[in-house]
Amino acid sequence: MTRVAAVQLAPVLGDLPGNLERAADAVASAARDGARLVVLPELATSGYVFASVEEARDLALPADDPRLAALARAAGEAVVVVGFAEAAADGRLHNSAALLDASGVRAVYRKAHLWDREKLVFAPGDARPPVVETPVGRVGVMVCFDLEFPEWPRLAALAGADVLAVPTNWPRAAAHAEGQASEVVIAAATARLNRMAVVCADRTGAERGVDWTEGTLIVDADGRLQGRVGPGAGTAWADLDLAASRDKRQTALSDLLGDRRPELYGPLAGR
Amino acid sequence: MTRVAAVQLAPVLGDLPGNLERAADAVASAARDGARLVVLPELATSGYVFASVEEARDLALPADDPRLAALARAAGEAVVVVGFAEAAADGRLHNSAALLDASGVRAVYRKAHLWDREKLVFAPGDARPPVVETPVGRVGVMVCFDLEFPEWPRLAALAGADVLAVPTNWPRAAAHAEGQASEVVIAAATARLNRMAVVCADRTGAERGVDWTEGTLIVDADGRLQGRVGPGAGTAWADLDLAASRDKRQTALSDLLGDRRPELYGPLAGR
Repeated sequence: MTRVAAVQLAPVLGDLPGNLERAADAVASAARDGARLVVLPELATSGYVFASVEEARDLALPADDPRLAALARAAGEAVVVVGFAEAAADGRLHNSAALLDASGVRAVYRKAHLWDREKLVFAPGDARPPVVETPVGRVGVMVCFDLEFPEWPRLAALAGADVLAVPTNWPRAAAHAEGQASEVVIAAATARLNRMAVVCADRTGAERGVDWTEGTLIVDADGRLQGRVGPGAGTAWADLDLAASRDKRQTALSDLLGDRRPELYGPLAGR
Repeated sequence: MTRVAAVQLAPVLGDLPGNLERAADAVASAARDGARLVVLPELATSGYVFASVEEARDLALPADDPRLAALARAAGEAVVVVGFAEAAADGRLHNSAALLDASGVRAVYRKAHLWDREKLVFAPGDARPPVVETPVGRVGVMVCFDLEFPEWPRLAALAGADVLAVPTNWPRAAAHAEGQASEVVIAAATARLNRMAVVCADRTGAERGVDWTEGTLIVDADGRLQGRVGPGAGTAWADLDLAASRDKRQTALSDLLGDRRPELYGPLAGR
Protein backbone atom coordinates (compact mmCIF):
# COMPACT_ATOMS: atom_id res chain seq x y z
CA MET A 1 0.00 0.00 0.00
CA THR A 2 1.13 3.53 -0.75
CA ARG A 3 0.42 6.30 1.73
CA VAL A 4 -0.92 9.33 -0.14
CA ALA A 5 -1.55 12.85 1.22
CA ALA A 6 -3.48 15.67 -0.41
CA VAL A 7 -2.95 18.98 1.35
CA GLN A 8 -5.70 21.60 1.45
CA LEU A 9 -3.99 24.86 2.32
CA ALA A 10 -4.46 28.61 2.01
CA PRO A 11 -1.83 30.36 -0.06
CA VAL A 12 -1.65 34.12 0.49
CA LEU A 13 -2.02 36.00 -2.76
CA GLY A 14 1.20 37.85 -3.48
CA ASP A 15 3.32 36.28 -0.75
CA LEU A 16 5.66 34.09 -2.80
CA PRO A 17 8.28 33.50 -0.05
CA GLY A 18 5.60 32.77 2.55
CA ASN A 19 3.74 30.42 0.22
CA LEU A 20 6.92 28.51 -0.57
CA GLU A 21 7.58 28.18 3.15
CA ARG A 22 4.03 27.02 3.85
CA ALA A 23 4.29 24.48 1.00
CA ALA A 24 7.64 23.20 2.28
CA ASP A 25 6.26 22.88 5.81
CA ALA A 26 3.22 20.98 4.55
CA VAL A 27 5.31 18.65 2.44
CA ALA A 28 7.82 18.00 5.22
CA SER A 29 5.03 17.33 7.70
CA ALA A 30 3.25 14.91 5.37
CA ALA A 31 6.50 13.10 4.62
CA ARG A 32 7.20 12.79 8.35
CA ASP A 33 3.77 11.21 8.76
CA GLY A 34 4.57 8.60 6.17
CA ALA A 35 3.31 10.05 2.90
CA ARG A 36 5.05 8.69 -0.19
CA LEU A 37 3.08 10.96 -2.52
CA VAL A 38 2.06 14.49 -1.53
CA VAL A 39 -0.20 16.65 -3.70
CA LEU A 40 -0.62 20.41 -3.15
CA PRO A 41 -3.13 22.81 -4.74
CA GLU A 42 -3.02 24.64 -8.04
CA LEU A 43 -0.99 27.87 -7.96
CA ALA A 44 0.01 27.08 -4.38
CA THR A 45 3.03 29.38 -4.56
CA SER A 46 1.23 32.46 -5.88
CA GLY A 47 -2.48 32.52 -5.12
CA TYR A 48 -5.14 32.53 -7.81
CA VAL A 49 -7.30 35.64 -8.20
CA PHE A 50 -4.85 37.89 -10.04
CA ALA A 51 -5.84 41.47 -10.75
CA SER A 52 -3.52 41.67 -13.75
CA VAL A 53 -0.99 39.80 -15.81
CA GLU A 54 1.73 41.87 -14.15
CA GLU A 55 0.70 40.68 -10.73
CA ALA A 56 0.91 37.07 -11.87
CA ARG A 57 4.27 37.69 -13.52
CA ASP A 58 5.72 39.02 -10.28
CA LEU A 59 4.74 35.75 -8.58
CA ALA A 60 5.91 33.37 -11.31
CA LEU A 61 8.94 31.09 -11.15
CA PRO A 62 10.94 29.45 -13.89
CA ALA A 63 10.72 25.66 -13.69
CA ASP A 64 14.40 25.42 -12.84
CA ASP A 65 14.17 27.87 -9.95
CA PRO A 66 16.08 26.47 -6.97
CA ARG A 67 13.16 27.42 -4.73
CA LEU A 68 11.04 24.75 -6.44
CA ALA A 69 13.78 22.16 -6.07
CA ALA A 70 13.95 23.08 -2.38
CA LEU A 71 10.42 21.72 -2.01
CA ALA A 72 11.73 18.37 -3.20
CA ARG A 73 14.38 18.41 -0.49
CA ALA A 74 11.74 19.15 2.13
CA ALA A 75 9.88 16.05 0.96
CA GLY A 76 12.67 13.61 1.75
CA GLU A 77 11.84 10.39 -0.11
CA ALA A 78 8.29 11.45 -1.01
CA VAL A 79 7.13 12.42 -4.47
CA VAL A 80 5.52 15.89 -4.59
CA VAL A 81 3.13 17.44 -7.10
CA VAL A 82 2.55 21.16 -6.67
CA GLY A 83 0.91 23.88 -8.73
CA PHE A 84 2.83 27.09 -9.47
CA ALA A 85 2.76 30.08 -11.78
CA GLU A 86 5.49 29.38 -14.32
CA ALA A 87 7.55 32.03 -16.07
CA ALA A 88 8.55 30.39 -19.34
CA ALA A 89 11.77 31.22 -21.14
CA ASP A 90 9.76 32.77 -23.98
CA GLY A 91 8.19 35.28 -21.61
CA ARG A 92 4.80 33.59 -21.42
CA LEU A 93 3.12 32.59 -18.18
CA HIS A 94 1.68 29.12 -17.58
CA ASN A 95 -0.56 27.63 -14.93
CA SER A 96 1.77 24.72 -14.27
CA ALA A 97 2.34 21.78 -11.96
CA ALA A 98 5.73 20.33 -11.11
CA LEU A 99 6.44 16.74 -10.16
CA LEU A 100 9.39 16.65 -7.78
CA ASP A 101 11.31 13.92 -6.08
CA ALA A 102 14.61 13.65 -4.22
CA SER A 103 16.44 14.19 -7.49
CA GLY A 104 14.67 17.54 -8.10
CA VAL A 105 12.12 18.56 -10.75
CA ARG A 106 11.15 15.45 -12.74
CA ALA A 107 8.41 16.96 -14.91
CA VAL A 108 6.57 20.22 -15.48
CA TYR A 109 3.06 20.19 -16.88
CA ARG A 110 1.35 23.29 -18.26
CA LYS A 111 -2.43 23.36 -17.87
CA ALA A 112 -3.93 22.79 -21.30
CA HIS A 113 -7.57 23.59 -20.52
CA LEU A 114 -7.60 27.04 -18.93
CA TRP A 115 -10.71 28.05 -17.02
CA ASP A 116 -12.50 31.35 -17.31
CA ARG A 117 -10.26 34.36 -16.60
CA GLU A 118 -7.13 32.23 -16.47
CA LYS A 119 -7.21 32.74 -20.22
CA LEU A 120 -6.49 36.43 -19.67
CA VAL A 121 -3.35 35.66 -17.67
CA PHE A 122 -1.84 32.37 -18.81
CA ALA A 123 -0.94 30.71 -22.08
CA PRO A 124 -2.36 27.19 -22.44
CA GLY A 125 0.05 24.26 -22.49
CA ASP A 126 0.50 22.31 -25.69
CA ALA A 127 1.54 18.94 -24.30
CA ARG A 128 -0.40 15.99 -22.96
CA PRO A 129 -0.31 15.15 -19.26
CA PRO A 130 3.04 13.61 -18.27
CA VAL A 131 3.10 10.17 -16.70
CA VAL A 132 6.27 9.82 -14.65
CA GLU A 133 7.82 6.60 -13.37
CA THR A 134 8.54 7.24 -9.70
CA PRO A 135 9.36 5.12 -6.65
CA VAL A 136 5.62 4.99 -5.82
CA GLY A 137 4.50 4.06 -9.30
CA ARG A 138 3.51 5.91 -12.44
CA VAL A 139 2.16 9.34 -11.55
CA GLY A 140 0.12 11.34 -14.05
CA VAL A 141 -0.22 15.10 -13.63
CA MET A 142 -2.89 17.58 -14.69
CA VAL A 143 -4.49 20.70 -13.23
CA CYS A 144 -8.07 21.39 -12.11
CA PHE A 145 -10.33 22.14 -15.13
CA ASP A 146 -8.30 19.62 -17.20
CA LEU A 147 -10.21 16.94 -15.29
CA GLU A 148 -13.49 18.16 -16.81
CA PHE A 149 -12.36 17.01 -20.24
CA PRO A 150 -12.66 13.23 -20.01
CA GLU A 151 -10.25 12.89 -22.91
CA TRP A 152 -7.45 14.17 -20.69
CA PRO A 153 -7.51 11.65 -17.83
CA ARG A 154 -8.14 8.95 -20.43
CA LEU A 155 -4.89 9.90 -22.15
CA ALA A 156 -3.07 9.63 -18.81
CA ALA A 157 -4.62 6.20 -18.21
CA LEU A 158 -3.64 5.04 -21.68
CA ALA A 159 -0.10 6.26 -20.96
CA GLY A 160 -0.07 3.97 -17.93
CA ALA A 161 -0.76 6.27 -14.97
CA ASP A 162 -1.44 4.39 -11.73
CA VAL A 163 -2.51 7.57 -9.99
CA LEU A 164 -3.49 10.98 -11.24
CA ALA A 165 -2.26 13.94 -9.18
CA VAL A 166 -4.46 16.99 -9.73
CA PRO A 167 -3.62 20.30 -8.06
CA THR A 168 -6.89 22.26 -8.11
CA ASN A 169 -8.52 25.54 -7.09
CA TRP A 170 -12.23 24.81 -7.28
CA PRO A 171 -14.23 28.02 -6.88
CA ARG A 172 -17.35 27.27 -4.89
CA ALA A 173 -20.48 27.15 -7.04
CA ALA A 174 -24.01 27.75 -5.87
CA ALA A 175 -25.00 24.28 -7.04
CA HIS A 176 -22.69 22.72 -4.47
CA ALA A 177 -25.09 23.58 -1.72
CA GLU A 178 -27.44 20.87 -3.00
CA GLY A 179 -25.24 17.88 -2.40
CA GLN A 180 -21.96 16.38 -3.46
CA ALA A 181 -19.92 18.95 -5.40
CA SER A 182 -19.87 18.12 -9.09
CA GLU A 183 -16.07 18.05 -8.94
CA VAL A 184 -16.25 15.18 -6.45
CA VAL A 185 -18.63 13.24 -8.69
CA ILE A 186 -16.34 13.85 -11.66
CA ALA A 187 -13.22 12.73 -9.79
CA ALA A 188 -14.94 9.55 -8.58
CA ALA A 189 -16.23 8.73 -12.06
CA THR A 190 -12.82 9.44 -13.60
CA ALA A 191 -11.16 6.96 -11.25
CA ARG A 192 -13.80 4.31 -11.80
CA LEU A 193 -13.91 4.66 -15.60
CA ASN A 194 -10.14 4.45 -15.95
CA ARG A 195 -9.40 2.21 -12.98
CA MET A 196 -6.83 4.78 -11.88
CA ALA A 197 -6.55 6.46 -8.48
CA VAL A 198 -7.24 10.21 -8.47
CA VAL A 199 -5.86 12.67 -5.92
CA CYS A 200 -7.16 16.25 -5.97
CA ALA A 201 -5.69 18.89 -3.64
CA ASP A 202 -8.04 21.86 -3.43
CA ARG A 203 -7.39 25.11 -1.61
CA THR A 204 -9.05 27.02 1.19
CA GLY A 205 -8.98 30.66 2.30
CA ALA A 206 -11.20 33.24 0.61
CA GLU A 207 -9.32 35.38 -1.89
CA ARG A 208 -10.66 38.66 -3.28
CA GLY A 209 -14.21 37.47 -2.65
CA VAL A 210 -13.76 33.99 -4.13
CA ASP A 211 -14.55 31.00 -1.89
CA TRP A 212 -13.50 27.43 -2.64
CA THR A 213 -15.20 24.06 -2.69
CA GLU A 214 -12.60 22.79 -0.20
CA GLY A 215 -13.09 19.50 -1.97
CA THR A 216 -9.67 17.89 -1.45
CA LEU A 217 -10.12 14.15 -1.97
CA ILE A 218 -8.47 10.85 -2.68
CA VAL A 219 -10.31 8.25 -4.78
CA ASP A 220 -9.08 4.70 -5.26
CA ALA A 221 -8.96 2.86 -8.57
CA ASP A 222 -12.46 1.47 -7.95
CA GLY A 223 -13.87 4.99 -7.69
CA ARG A 224 -14.35 4.85 -3.92
CA LEU A 225 -13.71 8.01 -1.91
CA GLN A 226 -10.94 7.11 0.54
CA GLY A 227 -9.94 10.49 1.92
CA ARG A 228 -11.51 13.93 2.38
CA VAL A 229 -10.67 17.06 4.34
CA GLY A 230 -13.82 19.13 4.58
CA PRO A 231 -13.84 22.87 5.35
CA GLY A 232 -10.64 24.67 6.28
CA ALA A 233 -7.01 23.65 6.11
CA GLY A 234 -6.03 20.03 6.51
CA THR A 235 -4.70 16.93 4.85
CA ALA A 236 -6.58 14.02 3.27
CA TRP A 237 -4.92 10.64 3.77
CA ALA A 238 -5.33 7.28 2.14
CA ASP A 239 -3.38 4.06 1.81
CA LEU A 240 -3.80 3.06 -1.82
CA ASP A 241 -3.02 -0.15 -3.64
CA LEU A 242 -1.59 1.54 -6.72
CA ALA A 243 -0.71 -1.79 -8.33
CA ALA A 244 -4.47 -2.38 -8.67
CA SER A 245 -4.54 0.32 -11.35
CA ARG A 246 -2.57 -1.91 -13.71
CA ASP A 247 -5.33 -4.51 -13.98
CA LYS A 248 -8.14 -2.97 -16.02
CA ARG A 249 -10.29 -6.10 -16.03
CA GLN A 250 -13.81 -5.93 -14.66
CA THR A 251 -14.55 -9.59 -15.33
CA ALA A 252 -12.64 -12.36 -17.09
CA LEU A 253 -14.10 -11.07 -20.36
CA SER A 254 -14.28 -7.30 -19.75
CA ASP A 255 -11.42 -4.80 -19.68
CA LEU A 256 -11.98 -1.07 -19.26
CA LEU A 257 -9.18 -0.14 -21.65
CA GLY A 258 -8.98 -3.30 -23.71
CA ASP A 259 -12.66 -3.06 -24.66
CA ARG A 260 -12.28 0.43 -26.11
CA ARG A 261 -13.13 0.86 -29.81
CA PRO A 262 -10.53 3.44 -30.88
CA GLU A 263 -11.22 2.76 -34.55
CA LEU A 264 -14.63 4.39 -33.99
CA TYR A 265 -13.39 7.37 -31.93
CA GLY A 266 -12.02 9.42 -34.83
CA PRO A 267 -14.16 12.57 -34.40
CA LEU A 268 -12.73 13.09 -30.88
CA ALA A 269 -9.29 14.04 -32.15
CA GLY A 270 -7.64 16.16 -34.81
CA ARG A 271 -8.40 19.61 -36.14
CA MET B 1 -39.89 21.62 -20.38
CA THR B 2 -39.99 18.07 -21.71
CA ARG B 3 -41.57 15.32 -19.65
CA VAL B 4 -39.31 12.27 -19.66
CA ALA B 5 -40.03 8.78 -18.32
CA ALA B 6 -37.59 5.95 -17.69
CA VAL B 7 -39.34 2.65 -17.07
CA GLN B 8 -37.81 0.03 -14.76
CA LEU B 9 -39.53 -3.22 -15.61
CA ALA B 10 -39.02 -6.96 -15.38
CA PRO B 11 -38.91 -8.75 -18.72
CA VAL B 12 -39.46 -12.49 -18.52
CA LEU B 13 -36.63 -14.42 -20.12
CA GLY B 14 -37.96 -16.27 -23.14
CA ASP B 15 -41.41 -14.68 -23.26
CA LEU B 16 -41.14 -12.53 -26.37
CA PRO B 17 -44.89 -11.92 -26.85
CA GLY B 18 -45.40 -11.17 -23.16
CA ASN B 19 -42.40 -8.83 -23.05
CA LEU B 20 -43.64 -6.94 -26.11
CA GLU B 21 -47.03 -6.59 -24.45
CA ARG B 22 -45.49 -5.39 -21.17
CA ALA B 23 -43.35 -2.89 -23.07
CA ALA B 24 -46.34 -1.60 -25.03
CA ASP B 25 -48.38 -1.25 -21.84
CA ALA B 26 -45.54 0.65 -20.13
CA VAL B 27 -45.10 2.96 -23.09
CA ALA B 28 -48.81 3.61 -23.47
CA SER B 29 -49.15 4.33 -19.76
CA ALA B 30 -46.21 6.72 -19.71
CA ALA B 31 -47.51 8.53 -22.79
CA ARG B 32 -50.96 8.87 -21.18
CA ASP B 33 -49.25 10.45 -18.16
CA GLY B 34 -47.62 13.04 -20.35
CA ALA B 35 -44.25 11.56 -21.25
CA ARG B 36 -42.79 12.90 -24.49
CA LEU B 37 -39.73 10.63 -24.27
CA VAL B 38 -39.94 7.11 -22.83
CA VAL B 39 -36.88 4.93 -22.28
CA LEU B 40 -37.10 1.18 -21.60
CA PRO B 41 -34.33 -1.22 -20.48
CA GLU B 42 -31.74 -3.08 -22.51
CA LEU B 43 -33.01 -6.31 -24.08
CA ALA B 44 -36.48 -5.51 -22.78
CA THR B 45 -38.13 -7.81 -25.31
CA SER B 46 -36.02 -10.90 -24.61
CA GLY B 47 -34.45 -10.94 -21.15
CA TYR B 48 -30.70 -10.97 -20.60
CA VAL B 49 -29.12 -14.07 -19.07
CA PHE B 50 -29.09 -16.32 -22.11
CA ALA B 51 -27.94 -19.92 -21.71
CA SER B 52 -26.90 -20.14 -25.34
CA VAL B 53 -26.71 -18.29 -28.62
CA GLU B 54 -29.65 -20.36 -29.83
CA GLU B 55 -31.81 -19.15 -26.97
CA ALA B 56 -31.00 -15.55 -27.85
CA ARG B 57 -31.65 -16.19 -31.53
CA ASP B 58 -35.12 -17.51 -30.79
CA LEU B 59 -35.92 -14.23 -29.01
CA ALA B 60 -34.39 -11.86 -31.57
CA LEU B 61 -36.30 -9.60 -33.94
CA PRO B 62 -35.26 -7.97 -37.18
CA ALA B 63 -35.28 -4.19 -36.90
CA ASP B 64 -38.14 -3.95 -39.39
CA ASP B 65 -40.33 -6.38 -37.48
CA PRO B 66 -43.86 -4.97 -37.27
CA ARG B 67 -43.96 -5.89 -33.58
CA LEU B 68 -41.32 -3.22 -32.89
CA ALA B 69 -43.22 -0.64 -34.92
CA ALA B 70 -46.30 -1.53 -32.87
CA LEU B 71 -44.52 -0.15 -29.80
CA ALA B 72 -44.31 3.18 -31.58
CA ARG B 73 -48.05 3.16 -32.13
CA ALA B 74 -48.62 2.44 -28.45
CA ALA B 75 -46.57 5.54 -27.65
CA GLY B 76 -48.84 7.97 -29.47
CA GLU B 77 -46.87 11.19 -29.90
CA ALA B 78 -44.03 10.14 -27.57
CA VAL B 79 -40.56 9.13 -28.68
CA VAL B 80 -39.53 5.68 -27.42
CA VAL B 81 -36.09 4.12 -26.97
CA VAL B 82 -36.11 0.39 -26.22
CA GLY B 83 -33.50 -2.33 -26.10
CA PHE B 84 -34.04 -5.55 -28.04
CA ALA B 85 -32.14 -8.57 -29.34
CA GLU B 86 -31.70 -7.88 -33.04
CA ALA B 87 -31.50 -10.55 -35.71
CA ALA B 88 -29.46 -8.93 -38.47
CA ALA B 89 -29.90 -9.78 -42.13
CA ASP B 90 -26.43 -11.37 -42.18
CA GLY B 91 -27.41 -13.84 -39.48
CA ARG B 92 -25.58 -12.14 -36.66
CA LEU B 93 -27.19 -11.11 -33.39
CA HIS B 94 -26.82 -7.63 -31.91
CA ASN B 95 -27.63 -6.13 -28.53
CA SER B 96 -29.54 -3.21 -30.03
CA ALA B 97 -31.72 -0.26 -29.16
CA ALA B 98 -34.40 1.19 -31.40
CA LEU B 99 -35.57 4.78 -31.44
CA LEU B 100 -39.23 4.87 -32.40
CA ASP B 101 -41.73 7.61 -33.00
CA ALA B 102 -45.17 7.87 -34.55
CA SER B 103 -43.62 7.30 -37.98
CA GLY B 104 -42.08 3.97 -36.88
CA VAL B 105 -38.44 2.92 -36.37
CA ARG B 106 -36.26 6.03 -36.78
CA ALA B 107 -32.89 4.52 -35.83
CA VAL B 108 -31.37 1.27 -34.66
CA TYR B 109 -28.16 1.30 -32.65
CA ARG B 110 -26.04 -1.81 -32.08
CA LYS B 111 -24.12 -1.87 -28.78
CA ALA B 112 -20.48 -1.31 -29.60
CA HIS B 113 -18.96 -2.10 -26.19
CA LEU B 114 -20.23 -5.53 -25.21
CA TRP B 115 -19.95 -6.51 -21.56
CA ASP B 116 -18.67 -9.82 -20.26
CA ARG B 117 -20.56 -12.81 -21.62
CA GLU B 118 -22.52 -10.69 -24.08
CA LYS B 119 -19.43 -11.24 -26.24
CA LEU B 120 -20.33 -14.93 -26.47
CA VAL B 121 -23.81 -14.17 -27.83
CA PHE B 122 -23.75 -10.88 -29.74
CA ALA B 123 -21.63 -9.26 -32.43
CA PRO B 124 -20.49 -5.73 -31.51
CA GLY B 125 -21.85 -2.81 -33.48
CA ASP B 126 -19.53 -0.88 -35.77
CA ALA B 127 -21.26 2.49 -35.81
CA ARG B 128 -21.19 5.47 -33.46
CA PRO B 129 -24.24 6.34 -31.37
CA PRO B 130 -27.00 7.86 -33.49
CA VAL B 131 -28.29 11.32 -32.66
CA VAL B 132 -31.82 11.66 -34.00
CA GLU B 133 -33.74 14.88 -34.52
CA THR B 134 -37.14 14.28 -32.93
CA PRO B 135 -40.08 16.41 -31.81
CA VAL B 136 -38.55 16.55 -28.29
CA GLY B 137 -35.07 17.46 -29.48
CA ARG B 138 -31.97 15.60 -30.51
CA VAL B 139 -31.88 12.19 -28.86
CA GLY B 140 -28.68 10.16 -28.67
CA VAL B 141 -28.83 6.42 -28.12
CA MET B 142 -26.41 3.94 -26.59
CA VAL B 143 -26.67 0.83 -24.41
CA CYS B 144 -25.46 0.15 -20.85
CA PHE B 145 -21.69 -0.61 -20.80
CA ASP B 146 -21.20 1.89 -23.67
CA LEU B 147 -21.61 4.60 -21.02
CA GLU B 148 -18.45 3.38 -19.25
CA PHE B 149 -16.35 4.49 -22.21
CA PRO B 150 -16.33 8.28 -21.86
CA GLU B 151 -15.41 8.60 -25.51
CA TRP B 152 -18.86 7.33 -26.46
CA PRO B 153 -21.14 9.87 -24.72
CA ARG B 154 -18.65 12.54 -25.77
CA LEU B 155 -19.19 11.57 -29.41
CA ALA B 156 -22.94 11.86 -28.90
CA ALA B 157 -22.51 15.31 -27.33
CA LEU B 158 -20.27 16.43 -30.19
CA ALA B 159 -22.94 15.20 -32.60
CA GLY B 160 -25.40 17.51 -30.86
CA ALA B 161 -27.39 15.25 -28.54
CA ASP B 162 -29.61 17.15 -26.09
CA VAL B 163 -30.40 13.99 -24.18
CA LEU B 164 -28.82 10.57 -24.13
CA ALA B 165 -31.22 7.61 -23.87
CA VAL B 166 -29.49 4.57 -22.40
CA PRO B 167 -31.35 1.27 -22.07
CA THR B 168 -29.39 -0.69 -19.45
CA ASN B 169 -29.26 -3.95 -17.51
CA TRP B 170 -26.91 -3.20 -14.62
CA PRO B 171 -26.08 -6.42 -12.73
CA ARG B 172 -25.85 -5.63 -9.04
CA ALA B 173 -22.25 -5.51 -7.80
CA ALA B 174 -21.13 -6.07 -4.23
CA ALA B 175 -19.59 -2.58 -4.19
CA HIS B 176 -23.05 -1.07 -4.55
CA ALA B 177 -23.84 -1.89 -0.95
CA GLU B 178 -21.42 0.82 0.19
CA GLY B 179 -23.19 3.82 -1.28
CA GLN B 180 -24.24 5.28 -4.57
CA ALA B 181 -23.88 2.68 -7.33
CA SER B 182 -20.93 3.49 -9.56
CA GLU B 183 -23.28 3.55 -12.55
CA VAL B 184 -25.18 6.43 -10.96
CA VAL B 185 -21.97 8.37 -10.37
CA ILE B 186 -20.90 7.73 -13.95
CA ALA B 187 -24.26 8.85 -15.38
CA ALA B 188 -24.20 12.05 -13.30
CA ALA B 189 -20.63 12.86 -14.32
CA THR B 190 -21.41 12.12 -17.96
CA ALA B 191 -24.28 14.61 -17.94
CA ARG B 192 -22.26 17.27 -16.16
CA LEU B 193 -19.13 16.89 -18.32
CA ASN B 194 -21.08 17.08 -21.56
CA ARG B 195 -23.90 19.34 -20.43
CA MET B 196 -26.32 16.77 -21.84
CA ALA B 197 -29.23 15.12 -20.04
CA VAL B 198 -28.85 11.37 -19.46
CA VAL B 199 -31.73 8.92 -19.05
CA CYS B 200 -30.95 5.34 -18.02
CA ALA B 201 -33.69 2.72 -17.80
CA ASP B 202 -32.49 -0.25 -15.75
CA ARG B 203 -34.35 -3.49 -15.17
CA THR B 204 -35.65 -5.38 -12.17
CA GLY B 205 -36.62 -9.00 -11.54
CA ALA B 206 -33.92 -11.59 -10.72
CA GLU B 207 -33.02 -13.74 -13.71
CA ARG B 208 -31.10 -17.04 -13.42
CA GLY B 209 -29.53 -15.83 -10.18
CA VAL B 210 -28.60 -12.37 -11.46
CA ASP B 211 -29.93 -9.37 -9.53
CA TRP B 212 -29.92 -5.80 -10.83
CA THR B 213 -28.88 -2.44 -9.51
CA GLU B 214 -32.41 -1.15 -10.14
CA GLY B 215 -30.70 2.15 -10.82
CA THR B 216 -33.12 3.74 -13.28
CA LEU B 217 -32.42 7.47 -13.26
CA ILE B 218 -32.81 10.77 -15.04
CA VAL B 219 -30.01 13.35 -14.81
CA ASP B 220 -30.33 16.89 -16.11
CA ALA B 221 -27.72 18.71 -18.18
CA ASP B 222 -26.14 20.10 -15.00
CA GLY B 223 -25.54 16.60 -13.68
CA ARG B 224 -28.31 16.75 -11.08
CA LEU B 225 -30.31 13.62 -10.38
CA GLN B 226 -33.92 14.52 -11.18
CA GLY B 227 -35.65 11.17 -11.16
CA ARG B 228 -35.12 7.74 -9.58
CA VAL B 229 -37.22 4.62 -9.09
CA GLY B 230 -35.55 2.55 -6.39
CA PRO B 231 -36.16 -1.17 -5.89
CA GLY B 232 -38.81 -2.97 -7.91
CA ALA B 233 -40.81 -1.99 -10.94
CA GLY B 234 -41.69 1.64 -11.51
CA THR B 235 -41.12 4.73 -13.59
CA ALA B 236 -38.73 7.62 -13.03
CA TRP B 237 -40.09 11.00 -14.10
CA ALA B 238 -38.54 14.36 -14.76
CA ASP B 239 -39.38 17.58 -16.55
CA LEU B 240 -36.21 18.54 -18.36
CA ASP B 241 -35.18 21.75 -20.08
CA LEU B 242 -33.56 20.03 -23.04
CA ALA B 243 -32.75 23.34 -24.73
CA ALA B 244 -30.26 23.95 -21.90
CA SER B 245 -28.07 21.23 -23.38
CA ARG B 246 -27.32 23.43 -26.39
CA ASP B 247 -25.45 26.03 -24.35
CA LYS B 248 -22.16 24.48 -23.26
CA ARG B 249 -20.86 27.61 -21.55
CA GLN B 250 -19.90 27.48 -17.89
CA THR B 251 -18.92 31.13 -17.73
CA ALA B 252 -18.60 33.89 -20.32
CA LEU B 253 -15.10 32.58 -21.06
CA SER B 254 -15.51 28.82 -20.55
CA ASP B 255 -17.25 26.31 -22.79
CA LEU B 256 -17.28 22.58 -22.06
CA LEU B 257 -17.01 21.63 -25.72
CA GLY B 258 -15.42 24.77 -27.13
CA ASP B 259 -12.49 24.53 -24.72
CA ARG B 260 -11.57 21.04 -25.86
CA ARG B 261 -8.08 20.58 -27.34
CA PRO B 262 -8.76 17.98 -30.06
CA GLU B 263 -5.39 18.64 -31.66
CA LEU B 264 -3.85 17.03 -28.57
CA TYR B 265 -6.24 14.06 -28.33
CA GLY B 266 -4.69 11.99 -31.14
CA PRO B 267 -3.82 8.84 -29.12
CA LEU B 268 -7.50 8.35 -28.22
CA ALA B 269 -8.50 7.37 -31.73
CA GLY B 270 -7.33 5.23 -34.59
CA ARG B 271 -5.90 1.73 -34.76
